Amino acid sequence: MSFFQRIEQRQSQNNSMLCVGLDPHPDKMPSHLKGDMATFNKAIIDATAEYACCFKPQIAYYAAYGAEAALVETISYIQKAHPDIPVILDAKRNDIGATAEMYAREAFVRYGADAVTVNPYMGGDTIEPFSKDKDKGVFLLCRTSNPGAEETQNITSSEGTPYYQYIAEKALETWNENKNIGIVVGATAIDELRTLRGRFPQAWFLVPGVGAQGGDLQAVVSYGSRAEGGGLIINSSRSILYASSGEDFAEKAADQAKDFCSQVEQAQA
Amino acid sequence: MSFFQRIEQRQSQNNSMLCVGLDPHPDKMPSHLKGDMATFNKAIIDATAEYACCFKPQIAYYAAYGAEAALVETISYIQKAHPDIPVILDAKRNDIGATAEMYAREAFVRYGADAVTVNPYMGGDTIEPFSKDKDKGVFLLCRTSNPGAEETQNITSSEGTPYYQYIAEKALETWNENKNIGIVVGATAIDELRTLRGRFPQAWFLVPGVGAQGGDLQAVVSYGSRAEGGGLIINSSRSILYASSGEDFAEKAADQAKDFCSQVEQAQA
Repeated sequence: MSFFQRIEQRQSQNNSMLCVGLDPHPDKMPSHLKGDMATFNKAIIDATAEYACCFKPQIAYYAAYGAEAALVETISYIQKAHPDIPVILDAKRNDIGATAEMYAREAFVRYGADAVTVNPYMGGDTIEPFSKDKDKGVFLLCRTSNPGAEETQNITSSEGTPYYQYIAEKALETWNENKNIGIVVGATAIDELRTLRGRFPQAWFLVPGVGAQGGDLQAVVSYGSRAEGGGLIINSSRSILYASSGEDFAEKAADQAKDFCSQVEQAQA
Repeated sequence: MSFFQRIEQRQSQNNSMLCVGLDPHPDKMPSHLKGDMATFNKAIIDATAEYACCFKPQIAYYAAYGAEAALVETISYIQKAHPDIPVILDAKRNDIGATAEMYAREAFVRYGADAVTVNPYMGGDTIEPFSKDKDKGVFLLCRTSNPGAEETQNITSSEGTPYYQYIAEKALETWNENKNIGIVVGATAIDELRTLRGRFPQAWFLVPGVGAQGGDLQAVVSYGSRAEGGGLIINSSRSILYASSGEDFAEKAADQAKDFCSQVEQAQA
């Protein structure tokens, strides 16, 4: 089954658009865990699984501390304990073909992720090593959630479309032979999200930037969903992971995840 | 001392523009090494050091096989055995600020690299975590060497400049407060290299794509150097690493590195 089929199936199981980001920061994790990322993640995973359509570990948090083993353990735990929930490895990789093959191997073989985030700057031949396995999903950065995105992604091309839209067209049309590519659109860029949904009524959007980054969850659901609903995966990391720094962190994370789903339901009403 | 000062010093020591890429591919390494990346790298490093202005390991080759320890060992070996030769970690990382901090930590703290390659797609606020330490170097992708680069990097912006040039202006002017940012320009894009040198007479260019990818070394030197010479770091990986698949691989690598330097000298004459 392809990644998008699995996400579709999971979303119909629990009616959730919530992607729980697994970004364990040593300074923010509850101190009683003494920096044990795998234990922290497993508690968060078990507490939020009921509300999640997928999990998304961000590889930098592991790589910065040489904690690759914790990342392997985390993904493998999700696959055993919650086999219905796919995993997106947030890695934002990209390189020329021969090297991109190695990055694809890192994401899909070494870590066993079901999908990966990829940076589109280098062009279509650098995306193909990630998208060639039609069962794996690829999310290409399109309009990111950070303040600086505007200066590099919103400049207008000579054809009159902003650069992020040009990238979206390449990603979702030209490069999408296996129909396994979606795009990343930040919740802080509602106008762009709306434009992209108008232009690509059926595409899959991965949306970071609600919560700590200030994106409006209800606006994302209203303007980002397909006309018939769905097509959206909305990430929340910090608001859920660090809802409490005490021993009740998992319980509070579950409360946040539940609240997130209620807000999405309200926006859908 | 800053990265660019160190490179300048090294280049004046041995009059070399050669960056030796350390991309150990399990299928291409001599079979008698049985996949031992650190041993392979150390032999290549010792054999080519005399001809090299820097070394550039590509992290994907290690990450794909869980060989982070070999990468740590490789960089630490260069720093002990050849302390005059700086190390660029080729990682092409990028993410929003909080996560970019983690990637910067990966490159500079965990691996102890002197410089890192970074993808500019997400904008200036995502570059700052890498460039804020003025002693470290940052190379932003500008015009890459792969065939697909044209469709994403050469499209014209409404101001009439191609996108790669817009990125170069941001990288080398707007984002370059610490004067520690250079750009990556592929040897397969000689027209663009020439344009960029004309526009940025003093900037540092990291140039991949000679050898296996087909770029013309002599044209790179002629059109890519500063008017007074220098400002160039030219990478060669496969032609040097895999000059022989036998027990004489290091010796043959040294021959290739020496030949590379002779070709550069000819082009300078």
